[in-house]
Amino acid sequence: MTSRMELLSRLAVENQTKMVLLVVDGLGGLPGPRGLTELESARTPHLDELAARGETGLLEMVDLGITVGSGPGHLALFGYDPLEFSVGRGILEALGVGAAVGPGDICARGNFCRWGEREIVVDRRAGRLPTERSRQILERLGREIPEIDGVRVTCYPSQEHRFVVVFSGAGLDERVTDADPQKEDRPMRWATARAPEAEFTARTANAFIRRVAEVLEGDPQVSSCLLRGFSGVPLLPDLKSLYRIRSAALADYPMYRGLARLVGMNILESGPRYGDLFHAVQAYWDDYDFFYVHVKAPHLAGEDGDFVGKVRALEALDEELNLLTDLQPTVFVVTGDHSTPSLLKGHSWHPVPLLFFSPYGRPDDAVSFGERVCARGGLGKIEASKLMGLMLAHALRLMKYGA
Amino acid sequence: MTSRMELLSRLAVENQTKMVLLVVDGLGGLPGPRGLTELESARTPHLDELAARGETGLLEMVDLGITVGSGPGHLALFGYDPLEFSVGRGILEALGVGAAVGPGDICARGNFCRWGEREIVVDRRAGRLPTERSRQILERLGREIPEIDGVRVTCYPSQEHRFVVVFSGAGLDERVTDADPQKEDRPMRWATARAPEAEFTARTANAFIRRVAEVLEGDPQVSSCLLRGFSGVPLLPDLKSLYRIRSAALADYPMYRGLARLVGMNILESGPRYGDLFHAVQAYWDDYDFFYVHVKAPHLAGEDGDFVGKVRALEALDEELNLLTDLQPTVFVVTGDHSTPSLLKGHSWHPVPLLFFSPYGRPDDAVSFGERVCARGGLGKIEASKLMGLMLAHALRLMKYGA
Repeated sequence: MTSRMELLSRLAVENQTKMVLLVVDGLGGLPGPRGLTELESARTPHLDELAARGETGLLEMVDLGITVGSGPGHLALFGYDPLEFSVGRGILEALGVGAAVGPGDICARGNFCRWGEREIVVDRRAGRLPTERSRQILERLGREIPEIDGVRVTCYPSQEHRFVVVFSGAGLDERVTDADPQKEDRPMRWATARAPEAEFTARTANAFIRRVAEVLEGDPQVSSCLLRGFSGVPLLPDLKSLYRIRSAALADYPMYRGLARLVGMNILESGPRYGDLFHAVQAYWDDYDFFYVHVKAPHLAGEDGDFVGKVRALEALDEELNLLTDLQPTVFVVTGDHSTPSLLKGHSWHPVPLLFFSPYGRPDDAVSFGERVCARGGLGKIEASKLMGLMLAHALRLMKYGA
Repeated sequence: MTSRMELLSRLAVENQTKMVLLVVDGLGGLPGPRGLTELESARTPHLDELAARGETGLLEMVDLGITVGSGPGHLALFGYDPLEFSVGRGILEALGVGAAVGPGDICARGNFCRWGEREIVVDRRAGRLPTERSRQILERLGREIPEIDGVRVTCYPSQEHRFVVVFSGAGLDERVTDADPQKEDRPMRWATARAPEAEFTARTANAFIRRVAEVLEGDPQVSSCLLRGFSGVPLLPDLKSLYRIRSAALADYPMYRGLARLVGMNILESGPRYGDLFHAVQAYWDDYDFFYVHVKAPHLAGEDGDFVGKVRALEALDEELNLLTDLQPTVFVVTGDHSTPSLLKGHSWHPVPLLFFSPYGRPDDAVSFGERVCARGGLGKIEASKLMGLMLAHALRLMKYGA
């Protein structure tokens, strides 16, 4: 735990205030053909009014020039130093497919593959097995390989030849190398333990691969599978014990619900549209102190390089925003977990626009919400992992440090 | 000692320049009914002219969102990392009542209290004993309990039932628990040592409480006292040995004089008004390199929620400011130890306006002194504990680092 987190935890008190953190995935962008970014181009009267009444700034997600994935981006927004705490690829993938994982479980990403003679891996993707065919195989595996040496095995389908496997049982350890030769036409490489404590896990993983091969024997396309990115559930101190807040998540994709669960948020259900998510916040308003709301559409458009699509997604969001602001949260924050400029068709390192509203702010000159307005904003550039502490401060939930 | 402090100390040289640090207690504020903060509302032509000729910025006292007390706020302004160095509650209270404390002394906050049968604490405040009555009791205790087991005991009155006790002698240690049941109608809880080295101190404290009970025997209202917040004088490297500066303090309240003494400043005497303090700086101008001047009135108005009163206090300060600027210090800084917005009636986490004047600055666009001007200021947002080094730099008192 960082000293800042310890300090905040020591100062935290309970009260009746409400906080809303609206995470617009991929919010930040870059100028398009007409010199304005997606957010600057979008017609967003509600966000603009909030920016005029509140404060603006930029979030540096991890460090200057560093592009973050959704895992570290969200950890930072939830107040965890993303260089100190990390979420492995296996666990992120597992969260992404909605796998149920708990403390002690180990997840890995699986690929169906094809072996030639003497276990030479001739196709690491089994001809990019169709998703539906993978799903059928996984159902069969579920019936035939419920456990290995007392370790429960659960597989979850993903796209095409990909799946996720979760090993649940006592004595598992994530320090296991990939069971994957990395290149084709090489002999199968088996999982090995990187620490003595992980030997049982490596043996279990290899036994699973052998069992898959037995079950699939005779199949002309699929011989067995490769396993990569072994990882357990990270030990994150939860928000309730850290800051005495009851927190809830409304998110449109399993990965974000999973990330929220890791930090101890309750996961609320709703439909996938902006309005569905925001109505759910209304429905649960009295039950929680802190609401994390995640919307994905702006990122998806950015990832497609669809400048106009991202503009539209932001405008559609703005139209529903009053469903949240009408609740009059004490602290209302709109930001993102990373930038996704259409120009780059993917996550980028650019700091993320931040809109911060509370009754205890010093409104700056902003009269609209956009990257360059935020770069001149009164809050300046803030480390993303410090945002949570600032929200607690404005919610009057932190005592004074020192007399 | 932080690496920055070590570096500054290694680079520090003497010269003839003068530095003035004017600390306006509770300087930072929040917008009032007309959208301007107290400082933005105040008519402050002298400060505005200085802002126009100098540089502006904001001080982050400890960390984003953290509200600081006067202790850590001042430590930061004096160049000490307030998370590394701390000043205990007992010692701050002792400084606040003007107690003479030195290295090795242990202070505690005292409450007169009333015991029922079998030492049940039935009233932790002895009916909020009037200040004058407490003072009389303390005078009697001073005569009757001058020492305990070779430890000198000195009591200082505070408000109502409160007082401060200073234990002076060899072998004392602050690691002692409160002698206080915390709630009423519970048996007296006696001081205990949190480390073996503190056992003598705990015994001495408990013996003092017993002696007080003996002296007060038969008094219908007061039985004895509770002691809390045992703390010794923190070991702070002094400014003279750190930076080769002769420093002096002019402060209108005992606590600030005490804080200044902790870092090795000479304490100068003056009347309490702005003009008195500033005239005293003039009188001692040739004798010191660094003057710390503290004014309290703006904080007091802010703490009362008196927006207009805080505006007036700032305007009154501005009217006398030429007494300091006429001295033509090489470096003249106006800032605060924390914000005290009238809206919040207390210390707050908001960064503190900073006005920095020296002949070697890069004046920014500021033409007035206020929170939002400072948020756009050329100095940006600075960690408060780094200010001292910047002052030394502008006073040309730091050599080059490396060849």
